[in-house]
Amino acid sequence: MSTNRTLYTCLSPALIDLYEVKDALVVIIDVLRATSTIAAALYNGAASIIPVDSISECVRIAAETGGITAGERDGKVAEGLTYGNSPFEYPRAFIENKILVLTTTNGTRLLHMALERGAADIVTGSFPNLGAVCDYLVASEKNVILGCAAWKDKVNQEDTLFAGAVISRVKQHFSINCDASHMAETLYHAAEGDCFTYMQSQQASHYHRLMGFGLEGDIRYCLTPDGANILPLYKDGKLILG
Amino acid sequence: MSTNRTLYTCLSPALIDLYEVKDALVVIIDVLRATSTIAAALYNGAASIIPVDSISECVRIAAETGGITAGERDGKVAEGLTYGNSPFEYPRAFIENKILVLTTTNGTRLLHMALERGAADIVTGSFPNLGAVCDYLVASEKNVILGCAAWKDKVNQEDTLFAGAVISRVKQHFSINCDASHMAETLYHAAEGDCFTYMQSQQASHYHRLMGFGLEGDIRYCLTPDGANILPLYKDGKLILG
Repeated sequence: MSTNRTLYTCLSPALIDLYEVKDALVVIIDVLRATSTIAAALYNGAASIIPVDSISECVRIAAETGGITAGERDGKVAEGLTYGNSPFEYPRAFIENKILVLTTTNGTRLLHMALERGAADIVTGSFPNLGAVCDYLVASEKNVILGCAAWKDKVNQEDTLFAGAVISRVKQHFSINCDASHMAETLYHAAEGDCFTYMQSQQASHYHRLMGFGLEGDIRYCLTPDGANILPLYKDGKLILG
Repeated sequence: MSTNRTLYTCLSPALIDLYEVKDALVVIIDVLRATSTIAAALYNGAASIIPVDSISECVRIAAETGGITAGERDGKVAEGLTYGNSPFEYPRAFIENKILVLTTTNGTRLLHMALERGAADIVTGSFPNLGAVCDYLVASEKNVILGCAAWKDKVNQEDTLFAGAVISRVKQHFSINCDASHMAETLYHAAEGDCFTYMQSQQASHYHRLMGFGLEGDIRYCLTPDGANILPLYKDGKLILG
């Protein structure tokens, strides 16, 4: 076991340049709901997921690849796209062997920021694939940055909770000189292992936004560990099974 | 009691432009140690405290005003200045009726950012003046931003803890749609009212930096409520007793 590797938590994309992204392993975290849906779709056999920034690029790349257009803007299916950002829209019977071209508000943007800054390795994480992400982090030899996608650069609870869940499981393998990481872990412990109940008890802003859309089932899924326990690995512009 | 007023917590100066600073009441929080020392010096009768950005400006303004030069860089007395950033350097016998010209790494910078963005009202807060800050926030009619000075833009635990302490006391007077605020409050509750013991149990980075300088007494003071329970109010370039 090495403790020379560092782990940092970046609570907002607006803070990314405070961290040494170059050559690091970056975990993109967008719990509600992009990275939960990515885990679900790959778990259910999607050939790959292509994350894109804009609706127009989503439509263009889907036309080129024969993929499915999907994405949200402000928590709803984006105009011009066919599917949304719910993990339940992608059961095996529908998504197996298909390409999903996904544009989301926050997660895709952070992924591209990590890429531009020379991250050696990019994976996505959320509660449905918590175990697989932790196993990969421990097995890797790289320094780690847990990158919270946040909400329009504002820190959010769900992404921070996931960072805390990861840290609580892998911390003995890293040197962690990072208050954001310690805060995330304290927050996770305060949730006492039940992030859904914790979020219900809180006035968490995006949680309530989605609850207002009738998405309680989605939220439960996104906050429950290991329901789609695979590793989405970014390679050549696509997320594939790692 | 009005609940139409909003309260937001800005965890890092790098995030300040996500918030509506104009016309707001901004609390500058730099617990270890700038805003604790500001509270202590004003409590002990300092005529005023002039916060400045740079060492050269500190020297220049002190010469003009007959003030005392003080400040830290990376937790130590800055070269060219006479005093440091410890609350214990400013007992009444020394500081009464004097002007303190103070430059610090993070707090002064955030104060000037709030000023440039048109804050209606700027005060400084730390545990030694927790009660006075809360009373002022409740009595004010303005929207509130709790501004954490952080450490070179990286989120820190001590400033976030103080934000949480404030929120736990004043929240019924505000509409709080801000995950950073809810996280701060959860963190504060996790500390169970004893922030010094909590920080000891954590690998909080600035805490350990200062402990390494032998500053345990300072840290205890800075994390203990109401030891210098006055309100530093920024007016015409100076912090004075509010």
